[in-house]
Amino acid sequence: MTLDRRKLRWNGWGWAHATFELGAREPAVWAYIAEALGRDKLARSPAVPLPDIHMPGSRLDQQTLADLQAITGGEHVKTDRYERAFHARGKSYLDLLRLRAGELGDQVPDAVVYPADAEETQSIVDLAVTRGLAVVPFGGGSSVVGGVTAMRGASQAGVLTVDTTRMHQLLTLDATSHTATLEAGVYGPHLEQQLQARGYTLGHYPQSFEFSTLGGWVAARGAGQQSGRYGKAEKWLLGARLATPRGPWHTESFPASAAGPNLNQLVLGSEGILGVITEATVRVHPVPALKDYRGYLFKTFEAGAAAVRELVQRQVPVAMLRLSDADETHFLQAFSGAQHPPGAATRIGSSVLAWRGYGEQRCLLLVGLEGEREVVQEAQITSRCICERHGGVSIGASPGRKWYARRFMMPYLRDPLLDRGVAVETLETSTRWSNLLPLYRDIDAAIRDAIQTNAADPRARAIVMCHVSHAYEDGASLYFTMVFPQKLGDTPAATLESAGAQWAAIKRAATEAMVQGGGTVSHHHGVGTDHMPWMATEKGPIGLSALEAVKRGLDPAGAMNPGKLLPPAG
Amino acid sequence: MTLDRRKLRWNGWGWAHATFELGAREPAVWAYIAEALGRDKLARSPAVPLPDIHMPGSRLDQQTLADLQAITGGEHVKTDRYERAFHARGKSYLDLLRLRAGELGDQVPDAVVYPADAEETQSIVDLAVTRGLAVVPFGGGSSVVGGVTAMRGASQAGVLTVDTTRMHQLLTLDATSHTATLEAGVYGPHLEQQLQARGYTLGHYPQSFEFSTLGGWVAARGAGQQSGRYGKAEKWLLGARLATPRGPWHTESFPASAAGPNLNQLVLGSEGILGVITEATVRVHPVPALKDYRGYLFKTFEAGAAAVRELVQRQVPVAMLRLSDADETHFLQAFSGAQHPPGAATRIGSSVLAWRGYGEQRCLLLVGLEGEREVVQEAQITSRCICERHGGVSIGASPGRKWYARRFMMPYLRDPLLDRGVAVETLETSTRWSNLLPLYRDIDAAIRDAIQTNAADPRARAIVMCHVSHAYEDGASLYFTMVFPQKLGDTPAATLESAGAQWAAIKRAATEAMVQGGGTVSHHHGVGTDHMPWMATEKGPIGLSALEAVKRGLDPAGAMNPGKLLPPAG
Repeated sequence: MTLDRRKLRWNGWGWAHATFELGAREPAVWAYIAEALGRDKLARSPAVPLPDIHMPGSRLDQQTLADLQAITGGEHVKTDRYERAFHARGKSYLDLLRLRAGELGDQVPDAVVYPADAEETQSIVDLAVTRGLAVVPFGGGSSVVGGVTAMRGASQAGVLTVDTTRMHQLLTLDATSHTATLEAGVYGPHLEQQLQARGYTLGHYPQSFEFSTLGGWVAARGAGQQSGRYGKAEKWLLGARLATPRGPWHTESFPASAAGPNLNQLVLGSEGILGVITEATVRVHPVPALKDYRGYLFKTFEAGAAAVRELVQRQVPVAMLRLSDADETHFLQAFSGAQHPPGAATRIGSSVLAWRGYGEQRCLLLVGLEGEREVVQEAQITSRCICERHGGVSIGASPGRKWYARRFMMPYLRDPLLDRGVAVETLETSTRWSNLLPLYRDIDAAIRDAIQTNAADPRARAIVMCHVSHAYEDGASLYFTMVFPQKLGDTPAATLESAGAQWAAIKRAATEAMVQGGGTVSHHHGVGTDHMPWMATEKGPIGLSALEAVKRGLDPAGAMNPGKLLPPAG
Repeated sequence: MTLDRRKLRWNGWGWAHATFELGAREPAVWAYIAEALGRDKLARSPAVPLPDIHMPGSRLDQQTLADLQAITGGEHVKTDRYERAFHARGKSYLDLLRLRAGELGDQVPDAVVYPADAEETQSIVDLAVTRGLAVVPFGGGSSVVGGVTAMRGASQAGVLTVDTTRMHQLLTLDATSHTATLEAGVYGPHLEQQLQARGYTLGHYPQSFEFSTLGGWVAARGAGQQSGRYGKAEKWLLGARLATPRGPWHTESFPASAAGPNLNQLVLGSEGILGVITEATVRVHPVPALKDYRGYLFKTFEAGAAAVRELVQRQVPVAMLRLSDADETHFLQAFSGAQHPPGAATRIGSSVLAWRGYGEQRCLLLVGLEGEREVVQEAQITSRCICERHGGVSIGASPGRKWYARRFMMPYLRDPLLDRGVAVETLETSTRWSNLLPLYRDIDAAIRDAIQTNAADPRARAIVMCHVSHAYEDGASLYFTMVFPQKLGDTPAATLESAGAQWAAIKRAATEAMVQGGGTVSHHHGVGTDHMPWMATEKGPIGLSALEAVKRGLDPAGAMNPGKLLPPAG
């Protein structure tokens, strides 16, 4: 199974035929959004269609094209408009602004190459180095931080985007050791299909699951929604194979070792600047016998966070803990209510809860359990006890079921919002438990303030909400979602400029608050171009110089994914 | 609390006044050892006393000495015989051969400097770079792989050993986040004393616990005996501070991050070649309410390994799993039996077990549980069920108690053995479950063969035994202990040569079997000088060049711990 690229949106999320189902009362949903954003009605801001976008010609000379074709076979070197546009950028807010405006500048790949295996990938990298070309590794292209933009250095003659998705096979499964080796271009569903056919799962289900690849998860240190059980990429990656400018690199792969630093940890988060990841060996688990997702309400975010902390610090085997703040809890209910107006029983139940203290400030916690039947059943009891001790009240399995059914759908909502002049952006970080609430408040305030300062007009309002989605013994992540009216221009190009500046100002303010408040610049989205300005703060001058040294050592010509992760030297 | 160096053995293990208690029947123990090694009686091979060892004069000029004294205060710069001998080497077999022979060559520090804090450490490193000196970071000096040998590069004018043990304070404890920041020179007992006074534990108890430091555990990616619960160093290190030739380095410290590679993983296993670790932030746990250590016997090593595998793969919360092979099980019993001859009841019990199939091939598994009372009690039931399913039989808490009481004592046995011309060496590795038994057999055969080929004389025999001491979902460690008669010479110097060559041949053969058989060159001992020849195989050429690049980037002059970890370039 490989995805047919032609069936995907080149300038938006997912399948071209699919959409976020708003149901029969769709107009009511848009009316709710408009009202929440201080609009009488939403604008109309359509994307520029593919034939109308500006696209420079390919800069590749005939010899290079022929050499590439000799490596992969002619049909696997693409220079057509769709392929070049599809691979020009990822899925960040800024990416979508540019794609929808049809303004890609000269950041368009000069060719998209689909190698069949690690050897072909190595040949492409070698050729690129010889010819002075940039190489952009591209899996699903779902980066939301500018990680796959078709950039090149000043002295580079062009950009080759290496699409890894022809490399999608499960190579070996070691059922005794619970490990599997797969080609890195495999998409999430195909990966799980191959593993589950043998009784195993990787269990890595990011929101981008359907349209992202194993290699991308590793390159960006991704996290799945059930990272509590299956781990973030840095927990499940056991070994990797890369095509680097210095040649093929097979990293060490032992259960544990004291033979110097673990270099898999250099691959994790390398975002293509050291080489193209072609294979990965990963930890797998037996397919869980039981899954149990259920909801609890807390009177405050603080109380919910305390429950989450106790759950992880007492090592209750949870797969997922997802605590929405009051704003997100309210939004989820209002959004759902616009689609399906609540019946009398629901309204009465809600009033009773409010009367019991679960009112305006109430927060929803989803507890997801996966694993052996007995373990899940026991964890269900323990987690309920802990939640109740912190004032949580069980609201049953229905919120869990609802979330689970729609867990990959949210990104589909962004395109129709953008069609209506509404921006959606997300930001995420992590910090220690002792700093979680102060940081939460700082970032929340910075976002609200920046949105207001950069508002489309004085009446514009924003929806700003947050959840904790990944919890550890020492801290947790914070995931902010913001929805606000775009600053639109008269033309697509003018909208790109005004909405782009609006986004940049908000992004800068929020990220400064994050970094100054003691949070990491990203918990699982990665760095790409968007977070690069903060890498010096994040790693410090010595840390940064260590990374720069590795980069220079493995890629002296600077061929690999230029302009990402590491700030330009000097 | 800091240890008084003068009360420690400079050429052996631990407190000078302490020894391995062999009890009233000590002669019987030695007779047993002699017989097991094919000797009529053991030799006499005393160590050269401190006044008689060869020691070159300090190469430091007066100005440099004065500058060092200005940094730390005069009393913290040591150039006396004891301090220089104590810091010349660690505690590897080869180290002890040299120390006991009094033949240190010119590998003796020209001064031992004890900085008070990170700033003084930085000043020392800066001065060393300016003056062209080598810097050897030294915590407890318990390296068993040559990690602290006072070596210098060809162009370096001398060696400064930086002893970190004046830096021993708990700086902060974050009880909300379960993290603590400590100075890195703190010894194990003092670290636990400070944490436990506040109700927390790091839980890192290597066999060297009493005489090793936090910084050393990090630098060598150490593992404590209870790593199942508390993790190997790479699991519990959350952040570090180093004095590097490029200046102070504070690594990032977040619960999880996607902002590029995690550079703490470069510090872990760096063995002093990037800088001196001065502080570490670590994950701590509440002091366990209950500890439960008990023994099971299995009919074969295979059956025991299968039980261990199921215990970890089903994520039973075990603190320690220690499975001895048949030879180790036999040795432990015989050794203990020589000290305390078994009574009639024990002998009958043993016969009954043998009759039930737990005979010559029987293997002892110790299961250690630590944590909350309910969790331990439940894990005790689960682990017993799993052991019994694999044919294990519970033999109660007494073997666990016995092991626990003596868990730090074994290294004390090496000195009296060496006094009697008997070598003890250990080797360890890890590999995937699917490869564990083949690798075990390969290494065991290689060790036995090499010991025989390099035997002191044709009648010499060896004790070779192994245990699994650290288990993971994907694999486990193998820890080999070998005891064999040394090839002695007529003089201490001649013994150094003959026994050194004997050791080198055995070490080479065993390590080749390890590496060729798919094991890592070290699970937790580190690399130092002894494993350096295998680093190219372990990391591959690209991996090695990545490490070399980091080294060049952070330490362009090559001041830090030269001759360790990375093979000389070219």
